[in-house]
Amino acid sequence: MLRHRAVISHLRQACSFQSVPSRLCIRACSTNDSLQPQCPRLAFSGDNSSPRGWRVMGTLLGLGTVLAYHDHRCRAAEKSPHIYTREEVRSHSSPETRIWVTLGCEVFDVTEFVDLHPGGASKLMLAAGGPLEPFWALYAVHDQPHVRELLAQYKVGELSPEDKAPSTLQTSDPYADDPIRHPALKVNSQRPFNAEPPPELLTENYITPNPIFFTRNHLPVPNLDPETYRLHVVGPPGCQSLFLSLDDLYQFPKHEITVTLQCAGNRRSEMTRFKEVKGLAWNTGAISTACWAGARLCDVLAKAGHRLCETEAHVCFEGLDSDPTGTAYGASIPLARAMDPEAEVLLAYEMNGQPLPRDHGFPVRVVVPGVVGARHVKWLGKVSVEPEESYSHWQRRDYKGFSPSVDWDTVDFDSAPSIQELPVQSAITEPKDGETVQSGEVTIKGYAWSGGGRAVVRVDVSLDGGLTWQVAELDGEEQRPRKAWAWRLWQLQAPVPAGKKELNIVCKAVDDSYNVQPDTVAPIWNLRGVLSNAWHRVHVRVTP
Amino acid sequence: MLRHRAVISHLRQACSFQSVPSRLCIRACSTNDSLQPQCPRLAFSGDNSSPRGWRVMGTLLGLGTVLAYHDHRCRAAEKSPHIYTREEVRSHSSPETRIWVTLGCEVFDVTEFVDLHPGGASKLMLAAGGPLEPFWALYAVHDQPHVRELLAQYKVGELSPEDKAPSTLQTSDPYADDPIRHPALKVNSQRPFNAEPPPELLTENYITPNPIFFTRNHLPVPNLDPETYRLHVVGPPGCQSLFLSLDDLYQFPKHEITVTLQCAGNRRSEMTRFKEVKGLAWNTGAISTACWAGARLCDVLAKAGHRLCETEAHVCFEGLDSDPTGTAYGASIPLARAMDPEAEVLLAYEMNGQPLPRDHGFPVRVVVPGVVGARHVKWLGKVSVEPEESYSHWQRRDYKGFSPSVDWDTVDFDSAPSIQELPVQSAITEPKDGETVQSGEVTIKGYAWSGGGRAVVRVDVSLDGGLTWQVAELDGEEQRPRKAWAWRLWQLQAPVPAGKKELNIVCKAVDDSYNVQPDTVAPIWNLRGVLSNAWHRVHVRVTP
Repeated sequence: MLRHRAVISHLRQACSFQSVPSRLCIRACSTNDSLQPQCPRLAFSGDNSSPRGWRVMGTLLGLGTVLAYHDHRCRAAEKSPHIYTREEVRSHSSPETRIWVTLGCEVFDVTEFVDLHPGGASKLMLAAGGPLEPFWALYAVHDQPHVRELLAQYKVGELSPEDKAPSTLQTSDPYADDPIRHPALKVNSQRPFNAEPPPELLTENYITPNPIFFTRNHLPVPNLDPETYRLHVVGPPGCQSLFLSLDDLYQFPKHEITVTLQCAGNRRSEMTRFKEVKGLAWNTGAISTACWAGARLCDVLAKAGHRLCETEAHVCFEGLDSDPTGTAYGASIPLARAMDPEAEVLLAYEMNGQPLPRDHGFPVRVVVPGVVGARHVKWLGKVSVEPEESYSHWQRRDYKGFSPSVDWDTVDFDSAPSIQELPVQSAITEPKDGETVQSGEVTIKGYAWSGGGRAVVRVDVSLDGGLTWQVAELDGEEQRPRKAWAWRLWQLQAPVPAGKKELNIVCKAVDDSYNVQPDTVAPIWNLRGVLSNAWHRVHVRVTP
Repeated sequence: MLRHRAVISHLRQACSFQSVPSRLCIRACSTNDSLQPQCPRLAFSGDNSSPRGWRVMGTLLGLGTVLAYHDHRCRAAEKSPHIYTREEVRSHSSPETRIWVTLGCEVFDVTEFVDLHPGGASKLMLAAGGPLEPFWALYAVHDQPHVRELLAQYKVGELSPEDKAPSTLQTSDPYADDPIRHPALKVNSQRPFNAEPPPELLTENYITPNPIFFTRNHLPVPNLDPETYRLHVVGPPGCQSLFLSLDDLYQFPKHEITVTLQCAGNRRSEMTRFKEVKGLAWNTGAISTACWAGARLCDVLAKAGHRLCETEAHVCFEGLDSDPTGTAYGASIPLARAMDPEAEVLLAYEMNGQPLPRDHGFPVRVVVPGVVGARHVKWLGKVSVEPEESYSHWQRRDYKGFSPSVDWDTVDFDSAPSIQELPVQSAITEPKDGETVQSGEVTIKGYAWSGGGRAVVRVDVSLDGGLTWQVAELDGEEQRPRKAWAWRLWQLQAPVPAGKKELNIVCKAVDDSYNVQPDTVAPIWNLRGVLSNAWHRVHVRVTP
């Protein structure tokens, strides 16, 4: 049973779509767990309407009957599979007729699972009555052993031999048109594409070259025609919308700033080492720096007739990347930040002097200095001012921080603010963990950055796991007060203490509000593995 | 020798005045340390001009001669003291004639010490040729055994019997006119007065009552006449200054905000427990919250003709409290913050609906929301806009953070930015450390706050030293976005785990940039003991 819960929890957050409604709280059946490890059961609390809840069925039939029914179903599926045609499967596409899907030659009744689907019921319903393959092609996170294991528990039969041929529904690969990437990138997921530069390249340059700038895509990369591209800027009530071509955007004063972007999941793999967190296993490279140029968002909003208002409001962004339901990637930032010329929020069309690469939002993306990457919406299609934050999944059901005590059974996404400014961060890029260094002197390099325009004022480095510290030398461009949007690279050349066979190298940064990084990862662990900014630690051996 | 260095270091930071010029780097004589423990020597590097440096004398005379000279001087002072008249002492008041001072009946030649004086040479020179008592009355930090021990090494003789009567220079107690304080306050120093409310009172009210609001004075409290009070606001070049009466200030729109003030040294005593830090031994109470009312600084600056300029500038404040040299308390904040209406910097004349109490700056003080207490200048006398930060000791030679590796021999105050915004902070006020709690259920209370207007979004509490966490309930007023100037009080009612004989209660807060408090104090230890914001820990016993 516990294993089943783990799989559900795993799935629930591995797939970044709508979460399960909180009224559906998964509870483990407390009885018989040890007796039926291969045929787990779910109990639903809070919603007793049949046919959703096993608890109701348990009340109606008695728990023993339920268990027997399950055992029967499991054994039946194993021993003599029922044979169905695709036609028959297609007729099971609603809660009333029950919801069936196929994978390969197998048929599954997922009626009970639909509301538990971590990506949301609506996403799974897209496949109702048909094959899962086209959707798994889009959301590659599904094609993993633990997902297949979960699915196996819902098996009700197999397809008839004449129907085993690939379904005609099979769509072409939605990622087939994605751009070609630089081979140096360390790929965390191909579909959607997510990749980071290796540490040894990351801090080679203060400005990250475009081809190795970390890439965080949530969906396939749209292929947009710059000639026909229009940015829809919704006007205030009673005013007309703007539909801006690229040439229109070029008419606004061109504003150029160097900004570091960081994914909320940067260094997630260190959290995973403490306790399982799925998501993408970013190392230290989900951060990069570019010189961005474009129109200031405040200028564009003013042109559309928007003014800063007394009440709290939000600027919502929609990308032109979308999922099979047509839902676009979306996010929002407070209007106060958007309208503040000093905040320098850009609608960027250039990255390091080049048109934006397709992976980074061609032809236009948002750049929100000092704020988490998830708000820098790429392939920008629409901008609007709303009284509430974006209703996007990524604004409301992801990219939030929680206490280490919160798990997927207890999480209340409404209880935490969406991540905007990020906390102070630093990491060591040289030497690498596990490397062997020469005795004599060691050179340690890395990066440090903080959110909200707060400058990094110091980086402390330890060779002894944090007992004693040395102050690193800060490189990179001087930072403007309150607009320290870009990282500082740093280095320290230090003698290797005589006789040391290994070094536990640690770094920690301090920003100009004197916030510091926490010592350890466990107390900041959170179920989505975001905001991983504990001291960065690298263990190396010393040549004798 | 080491002991002598420790005493110097101790003194250097115990007395919060100008630091020793960095070119004068104190070095221990590496030879003969063990031979002459009672007669330590100093060597000056970087300035060889006689008669300042023993190193030069060593070169001229040979080290052995120097040592012999010292031994002679020490023994001479011990065995048969020279007798001097006050007249003779008075004639030794410059480097040319050598610099003598008296304390009680003893006479000291402090020529070699003047440049090492932690409070700065100029402060010690005020006493040249006369008694120390009037100055020690002002800076009570001097009257301690380790200071007397240091001074004893410079003794050259004693006053003649007829001159032993108290000096006519003896001034009246400069603190005699300080206001009467509430007896609940825990006094950290009487002269100047520094005191905090006890934890059990601190979080009784969201708004701290005026009489127990923590008090941080650097000098005697001036007694100002509200009728004749004028605030001098220096105009921009070519413009006239304003001299504003209280009535003039009342003519500006009255702005009212609830703001938490925190001293940079709050929770210093926890740092001291790790490694010695002098300064005032604040516990968790150097923080309080009041509703302040006054004119907005941006309105007053605009009235004087100031505008926000392209280049970085600073608004410098001077208090009407001053030391015997006439030097006022001073501090500065960036002009950008001062001119930003959203930053809500006040020239406050009301505290919780009352005129400011004398201890809190009557008739006018600065309130800089989200910023360290040291910039909230009390008894405000003068405001000016300058291209540089305030040259005040408290802006440039104090209230800065350093790496744990930096000590009083290596500190370079110019290398760190002055503290403005403070990092995220929280503390437990109930139960108290060492208390015994009932088994069953425990109620834990405390406060949490962050600088820069960043709201506290969560407080995690642990009963097991940080292994597991529970989320506390946040009380207090809702915070405005980006203007969360006031603390949140919080509480948690938690069952005491059965069989537990003791609890290690820990709290840590998270702000809306998702910065967190560091786990432990050692890695943020710094020589001035400021910015002490590690997890707060309280150990309690449980009744069986």
